[in-house]
Amino acid sequence: MIDPVELTAELIRCPSITPEEGGAIQLLETRLKALGFAASRCDREGIANLHARIGEGAPVFGFAGHTDVVPPGDPADWTRPPFSGEIAGGELWGRGAVDMKSGVAAFVAAVAAWREAGGEGSVALLITGDEEGSSTDGTPAILDWMAANGEGLDHCLVGEPTCPERLGEMIKIGRRGSMTANFIATGRQGHTAYPHRAANPLPPLVRLLDRLASRELDQGTEHFDPSTLALTTIDTGNPASNVIPERARATCNIRFNDAHTSKKLAMWMLEEAAAASAGTGVRIESSFRASGESFITEPGRLSDVIAAAAEAETGLTPTLSTTGGTSDARFIKAICPVAEFGLVGRTMHQVDERAPVEEIRALARIYQGVLERYFDGG
Amino acid sequence: MIDPVELTAELIRCPSITPEEGGAIQLLETRLKALGFAASRCDREGIANLHARIGEGAPVFGFAGHTDVVPPGDPADWTRPPFSGEIAGGELWGRGAVDMKSGVAAFVAAVAAWREAGGEGSVALLITGDEEGSSTDGTPAILDWMAANGEGLDHCLVGEPTCPERLGEMIKIGRRGSMTANFIATGRQGHTAYPHRAANPLPPLVRLLDRLASRELDQGTEHFDPSTLALTTIDTGNPASNVIPERARATCNIRFNDAHTSKKLAMWMLEEAAAASAGTGVRIESSFRASGESFITEPGRLSDVIAAAAEAETGLTPTLSTTGGTSDARFIKAICPVAEFGLVGRTMHQVDERAPVEEIRALARIYQGVLERYFDGG
Repeated sequence: MIDPVELTAELIRCPSITPEEGGAIQLLETRLKALGFAASRCDREGIANLHARIGEGAPVFGFAGHTDVVPPGDPADWTRPPFSGEIAGGELWGRGAVDMKSGVAAFVAAVAAWREAGGEGSVALLITGDEEGSSTDGTPAILDWMAANGEGLDHCLVGEPTCPERLGEMIKIGRRGSMTANFIATGRQGHTAYPHRAANPLPPLVRLLDRLASRELDQGTEHFDPSTLALTTIDTGNPASNVIPERARATCNIRFNDAHTSKKLAMWMLEEAAAASAGTGVRIESSFRASGESFITEPGRLSDVIAAAAEAETGLTPTLSTTGGTSDARFIKAICPVAEFGLVGRTMHQVDERAPVEEIRALARIYQGVLERYFDGG
Repeated sequence: MIDPVELTAELIRCPSITPEEGGAIQLLETRLKALGFAASRCDREGIANLHARIGEGAPVFGFAGHTDVVPPGDPADWTRPPFSGEIAGGELWGRGAVDMKSGVAAFVAAVAAWREAGGEGSVALLITGDEEGSSTDGTPAILDWMAANGEGLDHCLVGEPTCPERLGEMIKIGRRGSMTANFIATGRQGHTAYPHRAANPLPPLVRLLDRLASRELDQGTEHFDPSTLALTTIDTGNPASNVIPERARATCNIRFNDAHTSKKLAMWMLEEAAAASAGTGVRIESSFRASGESFITEPGRLSDVIAAAAEAETGLTPTLSTTGGTSDARFIKAICPVAEFGLVGRTMHQVDERAPVEEIRALARIYQGVLERYFDGG
């Protein structure tokens, strides 16, 4: 038996502030090998990553998570040292107690308990040391290693915190995409008394931004809230009220659902920029950066199995949600259906991050229940 | 006889960089008293100003101008020292040679020559030491002194440079007004993934600015070009593309003709700001600063007299214009019809400011011709 609370505490004591390994990946590699896993490091560009598999044949069920954590800020602001992993008041304290060393520990405890109880099947753990940073050499490196080594997945559960208030409330079955657009409008400087001799970049820029901000991108789709576009900054830096500026810049951020792709949105914005600047003597340059496309795992076997296990433990029927920011699920969805389920996220990324010890143990039992249902039903 | 070129050179040697008196007002006071003028200093708040009058009874013809000059910049950039008043190549060099110590000297030379030739009538000179600065205690102080001392004007000529290329080309009979509007849009900060929890100040601000910049204020009036509105800056200073900002600022500058007043334009902008922000949770605060209303002296006796004198000297028929920035005529128009006529402005405010000596003498003859025609016709 592995106590997920003890293992979480051990992981918290590894100061794995992203992108530092901090001993956390090494600790897991040792423990998983002791449990009979075939464990392989898939390190890349100084980032520590681990692929560990137990069991033979198909299907392969995956658990994915990360050991890196966001910085604790000033440790003096914490009630207890952020890397001490102390238990007090029924809670385990420390950076990563929620996001998501507890989730990783619960994976390990769940697989061990399931196998001790006679469970059979193939389970793979994908553990990265770079989810809170750029992610470039984290989960993508594990997936590249898997492709090169003939390892696959049939379904995958990402153990990020997903529940707003109570364990069992919410499963995430997709995420909106996110993209950022930058616009630089360049005209010709001049005096405000003689505007016909200048080309003011601001009127076409505000025309463009008004058009972008006014458009209803969609009214939501079956599983998604409506897509949103937020203007985030417009800057000129011209202190002289009698001078028409040469240049101005603006940025907007779009969170988009499965009615869109970043490419089509970029095409739309390019067309609007061309229309707004046509005939003005102003050139609007546009650049786009997509940090993830939207994705959805349609409700089905994976979400059914997770929901049943969560309901058996908590009595709650999880809602299937697509809210929130990005996660490494955006990489894994390329190879198999993926869903996310984990702890209550309330204190994540905050000072005094902590999780009730009973909630961590309940999460391990839910993950065990997922394996039982997945392989019984397989 | 007074040589206007010599007097201009003497004035140039007074380093009267605004708001410094530099000896220029003192020099004029002495000369005008010697010519028989009743000269009174109307200094206020450290600014030197002079009112000088010769002749009794009505009507009173006024000449208005200034002795202060804009800074020369680095004297090393000048071909000749900026306060030397040297004559070379048929030109008088130095800061103020064009704008407008030459104009002031031409007033004095014209009145002296006109009286020597038997001219009779009342002439007042309004000479300020603060036209290039804030103007607050310049011409307004002279006008206050005149009101307090029972002095008036029936018509006034401001001797600013008005001709684009050749002396005699242009009389200015009015000026557009100028006002600056500042907008501060304040909402509620938030994360771009949850825009409904925030109130983004940028969409109502760009809506407002698009409305303002799109409106055709007028198509021009009888004597004026169309009014113009120029957006000059929009600033937010938000570096985070996933954050909705709390606040953004914008400025626009309006140059407006006699179809508008600054008060009515402010009302219009307040209404547009209210409409753009209605129901958004964003507050747009507007503030306005008018540096001058538009004004027009309808073509008539004053412009006829100046045009006839200019044509007799130069052979050119001056156009009656309302182009360009503001001048102290905006204060004087409150008490009488006012028009502007002076040298070719090409080198004003520049390094190597200079004026042909024959042009300065021709200007004095034109001003003398104005007095002859004004009082003969009076």
